[in-house]
Amino acid sequence: MNIRTIDGGVTAAKGFKAAGYAAGVKYENRLDMAMVYSEKPCVAAGTFTSNVVKAAPVLWDRRIVRETDGSVRAVVVNTGIANAGTGEEGLRLCEETAAKAAESLGTDRDEVLIGSTGVIGPQLNMTAILNGVERLAGMLSDSREAAHTASQAIMTTDTHPKECAVTFTVDGKTVTLGGMAKGSGMIHPNMCTMLGYITTDIKISKKMLQQALSQVVPDTFNMISVDGDTSTNDTLLVLANGEAGNKEIVSEDADYDAFREALFQVTRDLAIQLAGDGEGATKLITCHVVNAADRDKAKILAKSVITSNLTKAAFYGNDANWGRILCAMGYSGAQFDPERLDIFFDAEGCSRIQLYHDGSGQPFSEEEATALLKHEEVVITCDMKEGPEEATAWGCDLTHEYVNINADYRS
Amino acid sequence: MNIRTIDGGVTAAKGFKAAGYAAGVKYENRLDMAMVYSEKPCVAAGTFTSNVVKAAPVLWDRRIVRETDGSVRAVVVNTGIANAGTGEEGLRLCEETAAKAAESLGTDRDEVLIGSTGVIGPQLNMTAILNGVERLAGMLSDSREAAHTASQAIMTTDTHPKECAVTFTVDGKTVTLGGMAKGSGMIHPNMCTMLGYITTDIKISKKMLQQALSQVVPDTFNMISVDGDTSTNDTLLVLANGEAGNKEIVSEDADYDAFREALFQVTRDLAIQLAGDGEGATKLITCHVVNAADRDKAKILAKSVITSNLTKAAFYGNDANWGRILCAMGYSGAQFDPERLDIFFDAEGCSRIQLYHDGSGQPFSEEEATALLKHEEVVITCDMKEGPEEATAWGCDLTHEYVNINADYRS
Repeated sequence: MNIRTIDGGVTAAKGFKAAGYAAGVKYENRLDMAMVYSEKPCVAAGTFTSNVVKAAPVLWDRRIVRETDGSVRAVVVNTGIANAGTGEEGLRLCEETAAKAAESLGTDRDEVLIGSTGVIGPQLNMTAILNGVERLAGMLSDSREAAHTASQAIMTTDTHPKECAVTFTVDGKTVTLGGMAKGSGMIHPNMCTMLGYITTDIKISKKMLQQALSQVVPDTFNMISVDGDTSTNDTLLVLANGEAGNKEIVSEDADYDAFREALFQVTRDLAIQLAGDGEGATKLITCHVVNAADRDKAKILAKSVITSNLTKAAFYGNDANWGRILCAMGYSGAQFDPERLDIFFDAEGCSRIQLYHDGSGQPFSEEEATALLKHEEVVITCDMKEGPEEATAWGCDLTHEYVNINADYRS
Repeated sequence: MNIRTIDGGVTAAKGFKAAGYAAGVKYENRLDMAMVYSEKPCVAAGTFTSNVVKAAPVLWDRRIVRETDGSVRAVVVNTGIANAGTGEEGLRLCEETAAKAAESLGTDRDEVLIGSTGVIGPQLNMTAILNGVERLAGMLSDSREAAHTASQAIMTTDTHPKECAVTFTVDGKTVTLGGMAKGSGMIHPNMCTMLGYITTDIKISKKMLQQALSQVVPDTFNMISVDGDTSTNDTLLVLANGEAGNKEIVSEDADYDAFREALFQVTRDLAIQLAGDGEGATKLITCHVVNAADRDKAKILAKSVITSNLTKAAFYGNDANWGRILCAMGYSGAQFDPERLDIFFDAEGCSRIQLYHDGSGQPFSEEEATALLKHEEVVITCDMKEGPEEATAWGCDLTHEYVNINADYRS
């Protein structure tokens, strides 16, 4: 399929506008609110946190996406305060935010989705939020810059914004898909991750949009981890406004396959950006489990490796301590034969290093291994030699800076 | 029951001797091998790691404890090298160690249990090990000092040795139970923990000894976590030589109950010592979940809280960031109503601080909370208000020093 990556974000698809604003929700002079808007009504799909403690905006969005057939026109996001652990008052403030956005945009309250991220516990600062919503509505633009500002405005401890866009052809029409996401702590998605917003001009039914999203999330956002903590606020939304003019996708045909592949690429790209920019991270760690007997096992093994604190700390120290990888596979819950398994390290421009073969460590140059591990992207390959399945998970190292950030997050 | 804590370790019970020695397995001039010996044959019980990758000594001990009816006379432990991920050669070296000990002690090879801890991967340095075994056999003593030296010799990154002993009465006879254990990284026991050795002079059948151990481990060693990594080497052994002269315990009678309670106290004491001395830890964190609908749920919730990296980092920073506790409960897998739940902090000499009540944060003095969190032992209480069950888990904070230790462990 001819899917081409382009420079862009949430305004790349036709008919979408965005804005970012420093509303002063928790800090002054820092972009902390974003809005995404579609002139035409959109169908929306979403995946949400599996955490029993769900933030108010998660409850709000889930109701609109899952329980109504209605269209969506806008998304409003704030950082600084997560609006989680805030009880009924938190839900009321979420509703009030949506009502204000509806009023400012001339839409219905139930056409506005909400996202929040930040400290769990405090109630929203509504003076800042309501003022922010009004200002954002007046600043909306379909420019590349507007999308970029919005992607900056949803950041918390992220060190850079995450955006991605692709274009492809469906039914003879050019379709565009663009998105933004934010990390970067409390990242261990289960259903989906933190905050991610994807917009597209494809014409697709709500049912097929949700199906495509549900199919790509388990292999992308759900395969990354920064710290093993599944957030209360994880939300990934896709809005499709149909402006590309293609014949509406209503079944699993070739057009659907093309769209799903494009959505897979965008979600994978954003997920990898999140893993590599985990709190305090100095490198992206990819674990590729190959030749496994079944795919679920491959996924469990890959995710266990990139979640292991000891493995992550060893990577921070550029220490080729492969025993910790083997150990993390061993306690993952997946069954396998440790006497029949190979482990390798790869990095761009380096010769592959084999560390383990069928039950015993292999001789390797510590110097070469350390040089390889100093790269910003390191790949661990675990060859199970038992079948045709594979899986990939992405994570980052565990660093002093992670402890710095999280020992003093609220202040 | 009249169970009294006494000063002592693995030589506290009648008929047990111990020794520690600097054998040079990996480092020079550092106590790194220990031996425990009973003049009389012992019945033995054990719990072992659930990690699929099991170290050679785990396979060796498990066979002897589970698959033979034979007695046990000695345990030999080395640190520095874990003899895990070492394949058939590793098993052969384990066997060779046991054979050497049997020769030196005049016992059978299958009466010798082995424990190893340290780096996963390399083969044992057998020159050092075999010399060490011979020296240890010549140094055995039933003195308090010998037990202490042995407890020092099984340490790796532990900052202090862990010992515990109690005495109580069964069938009119004084019975003693003493033990030692080591942590302090790769600690997230599942079945049992790292290395722990308990000796007792009680007369008890092998079956009842194993039953008592299996009953106390789920609430003690299996309720602590330092870093979420379940080791390849976790082993907890209990040896009983019958020297107390009581009528043999062969069923669940009052004598069994007294013994099980004493064993519970010793395992809990050692487990708490391990949690508080986790790698890099500055404090012991106890999470007490009370008034839960069922006990399994209470255990899952308590363990999820003390395993959360974000919660652990906040405690390091003395930051009363209770939202992370609520979040960790939420992703634990246990179902509960976050709108009906209270969270408190306690520490010795401090007034209790309530942080959360029925869906919303409670006002509290940040100054008082920080002062409380600076204590070396902090208790989190989560009141579920839904039933009669409770559970306790123990962990430690996540610190810069944890990263220091684990970014550079092998060298």
